[in-house]
Amino acid sequence: MNNFTYSIPTKIYFGKGQISHLTELASYGSKVLLVYGGGSIKKQGIYDETLKLLSGSGMTVFECSGVEPNPKIETVRRGAEICKSEQVEMVLAVGGGSVIDCAKVIAAAARYDGDAWDLVIHPERIQAALPIFSVLTLSATGSEMDKFAVISDMSRHEKWGTASEHMKPTMSVLDPTYTFSVSRRQTAAGTADIMSHIFETYFTNVENADVQARFCEGLLKTCIKYAPVALEQPDNYDARANLMWASSMAINGLLSGGAEVAWCVHPMEHELSAFYDITHGDGLAILTPHWMDFVLSEKTAGKFAEYGVNVWGLDADADAMDIAKQAIALTRDFFGRMGLPATLRDVGIDETHFDIMAQKASAACANTYVPLSKQDVLAIFKAAL
Amino acid sequence: MNNFTYSIPTKIYFGKGQISHLTELASYGSKVLLVYGGGSIKKQGIYDETLKLLSGSGMTVFECSGVEPNPKIETVRRGAEICKSEQVEMVLAVGGGSVIDCAKVIAAAARYDGDAWDLVIHPERIQAALPIFSVLTLSATGSEMDKFAVISDMSRHEKWGTASEHMKPTMSVLDPTYTFSVSRRQTAAGTADIMSHIFETYFTNVENADVQARFCEGLLKTCIKYAPVALEQPDNYDARANLMWASSMAINGLLSGGAEVAWCVHPMEHELSAFYDITHGDGLAILTPHWMDFVLSEKTAGKFAEYGVNVWGLDADADAMDIAKQAIALTRDFFGRMGLPATLRDVGIDETHFDIMAQKASAACANTYVPLSKQDVLAIFKAAL
Repeated sequence: MNNFTYSIPTKIYFGKGQISHLTELASYGSKVLLVYGGGSIKKQGIYDETLKLLSGSGMTVFECSGVEPNPKIETVRRGAEICKSEQVEMVLAVGGGSVIDCAKVIAAAARYDGDAWDLVIHPERIQAALPIFSVLTLSATGSEMDKFAVISDMSRHEKWGTASEHMKPTMSVLDPTYTFSVSRRQTAAGTADIMSHIFETYFTNVENADVQARFCEGLLKTCIKYAPVALEQPDNYDARANLMWASSMAINGLLSGGAEVAWCVHPMEHELSAFYDITHGDGLAILTPHWMDFVLSEKTAGKFAEYGVNVWGLDADADAMDIAKQAIALTRDFFGRMGLPATLRDVGIDETHFDIMAQKASAACANTYVPLSKQDVLAIFKAAL
Repeated sequence: MNNFTYSIPTKIYFGKGQISHLTELASYGSKVLLVYGGGSIKKQGIYDETLKLLSGSGMTVFECSGVEPNPKIETVRRGAEICKSEQVEMVLAVGGGSVIDCAKVIAAAARYDGDAWDLVIHPERIQAALPIFSVLTLSATGSEMDKFAVISDMSRHEKWGTASEHMKPTMSVLDPTYTFSVSRRQTAAGTADIMSHIFETYFTNVENADVQARFCEGLLKTCIKYAPVALEQPDNYDARANLMWASSMAINGLLSGGAEVAWCVHPMEHELSAFYDITHGDGLAILTPHWMDFVLSEKTAGKFAEYGVNVWGLDADADAMDIAKQAIALTRDFFGRMGLPATLRDVGIDETHFDIMAQKASAACANTYVPLSKQDVLAIFKAAL
C-alpha cells in the first residue's frame, strides 16, 4: 500500500426528501448562482422546490442554465461572469455530473482573474473557489463528492479534466427518487461510467492495497446487481439508491488512496467525445472490454482472475488465464445486456481521426496499469471499430 | 437503504513518516495538550519526534500522561483541568484508542462548565470541543476517525460510550510502522475489536444496503487475511497497513450510514470490562460467536449464509442453515487461531455479577438485529462461561 492523504470533506444528505437541507446554504451567504442544464429539473419539480427553499431562506438566486451534456468553456465563462458582476457567494448545481462539473469550474473561475480555460489546462492555478453545493439527478460521474471537473472547448476539439481540493463540494443532496425518470440509455451509460471509474483504480500496480481492492469489488458487484433492476424498474428505490451511492464512492478518493495509478480508458474516451461529442458512458462501454483484451497477458492474468473470482463468482480453482478471459467476456456481455453500444461504428465513429486521437490520448497513458504507446491506443481503437 | 447523513471530516495522513504533518497543528494555535498512556511511545521514539515537531513549530506543549487501557473519568478531569487553567487550544492524542477516547472527552470537557462525567452519560451536552488530533499506535477502536469515546468510572462499575460530531478528530496520522511493536495479544484483540465493529453493522435489518454490506465483507476478508500475517511477521508493512486502514473504516460511519442498527455485543462486553477490567477485544472475541449461535434462526440464516459465502468463500449452493453454522464455526475457529480467549472463565469471570450485568446490557439491546431481553443476555453469558 502507498502513502496517501485521505480528505473527503463533502457532507452528504442521502435519501428521500433530503433537499430540505438546502436551507443550510443561508449560513454561507445570501447570493447563490443556480447552475442547471435543460428543463428536466423543471418537469420534475426540483427547480421549483429549490427556489422555494432558497428564497424562503432569504437568499437571492441568480441563474446559469443550459449547461451542455459535455459542458463547454463558454458556459463556464458565462457563469463566472455573473458571479463576479453580482458578487455571488456560492454556487449550487442541480443536475448530473456535467452540471456539477460546470458549476465547480464556475466557482473557481469566480475567484480567478484570468480566463477560465487556464483553470482547465493548469489545475494548479485554482487557488480558491466559492463554496460549491449540489443536488444530484444522475448517478454517473461522482462529481457530487470529488475534486474533478471535465470541460470541453469544441472549437479546438479539446476535452480536459481538471482537479482541485478547492472544488470539492461542501455539501451534496443525493435523493435517489430524482433518478427515477432517468432513461434506460442514460442509466446504462451512467453505470458504465461508474464501473469504469472503479476499473481505472482497481487495475493498479500497487500491491496489497486490499482494503481498496475489496471496496472496488463490492461496488462492482453492486452495479452489476442493480443496474439491470433499474433498467427494468426505473422507480425501484433500492436499485437507484445503490447506484447513486456507488457513483459517489467510486471516485471520491476512497478507492484510489494508497493504490494510485494513472487512468487510461478515460483519456482514450475523452478523445472520442472531444471529436464526436458522444455520450461519455457509451464510449467507456465500447473501449473498456477492448482495453481489457489488450492488456491481458501472463503478467496481468492474476489480477483479472481475481476480478473474475471476487466480482463474477468464477471458480477460483480454474486456470488464471481462463478465469481472466471469462471475466472479460462477462464484462462485455454485461454492457451488451444493458443495451450499450459495442463498437465505435455504432456511435458513428470511423478511422478518420484515429491518428491524432491516439497521439493525444497516449500522452496520458505512460504510467497506467499497463503503459500504452500511441500504437497501443491505435490498436485498441481499431479493435473497437 | 435508509436515509442518512454522511460526514467524515477527519483528514488522514496515512503511511510511513506522515508524522511530519504535525507541524500543521500550528495553524490551530500555539498551546497543545499532549495526551498519552504509558512509556511505549517514548521507547519507540514517537514521543521525542512529536515534541521536536511541535516545539519546532513554536508550540507550547502541556502533558496529560498515564491514560489507562480503559480510560478513567479521573484522567479526563485531570486533562480538562490543564486545558482550562492553561488556555490550551487543541488536544493531541498519541497512542491507541483508549488514549484518543480520553483526549476526545478532555477536548469536550475543556469547553464545558460542569463535570466531565455529564458528557459521558449525556452526549447531547457536548456542544463544543477543542480541535482534536491523533497519532495512532494501535489498530483497533477506530477512534482516530470517528465520533465515539468510551470512558469508565470504576468506582461505580460504569463504562459508557459517548458520541458527538464535535469529537471527530480534525486530523489523524496513521503510520503502520508504529504498530510493528504491538504484541501478539494486542494485535489479536485489536483485530477482534475491528471485526466486531463490522459485525455490529453488517447484521442489520435494513434491507438492500448493498454498498454498505459489500464494504463490510471486504473489510472482514482483509482482517481475516492479514491478522494472522501480522501475528507471524510483526513488521510486515502491508499487513499492518491493511489492519490499520480497516480499523478506521470499520466505524467511521461509512458502513453504518443507511444501514443503521443498534449494537448488542459491545454493550454486553462493556459490562464485562466495567466489572472485571478485561481487554475489550478479548471480551468481544469470547461473546461474538455465542451471540451468533444465539441469534441464528430460520429467519436470520440467510444473512449468516451471505456472510459465509461472501467472506469465507463457502459454497453458495449449500443449504442456508448449513452455510450459516459453518460460517459461525469458522469465526470461532479464527478467533481461536489468533490465540484469543474462548470462554469467560479464561479471563477470570464467573457467574457472580451475571444478573446485574445482563440487566444493564439488555437496556441497550431492544433495537438490535435480534432484540435481546435480560434473559437472552443471561443465556449468552452462560453459554460463554
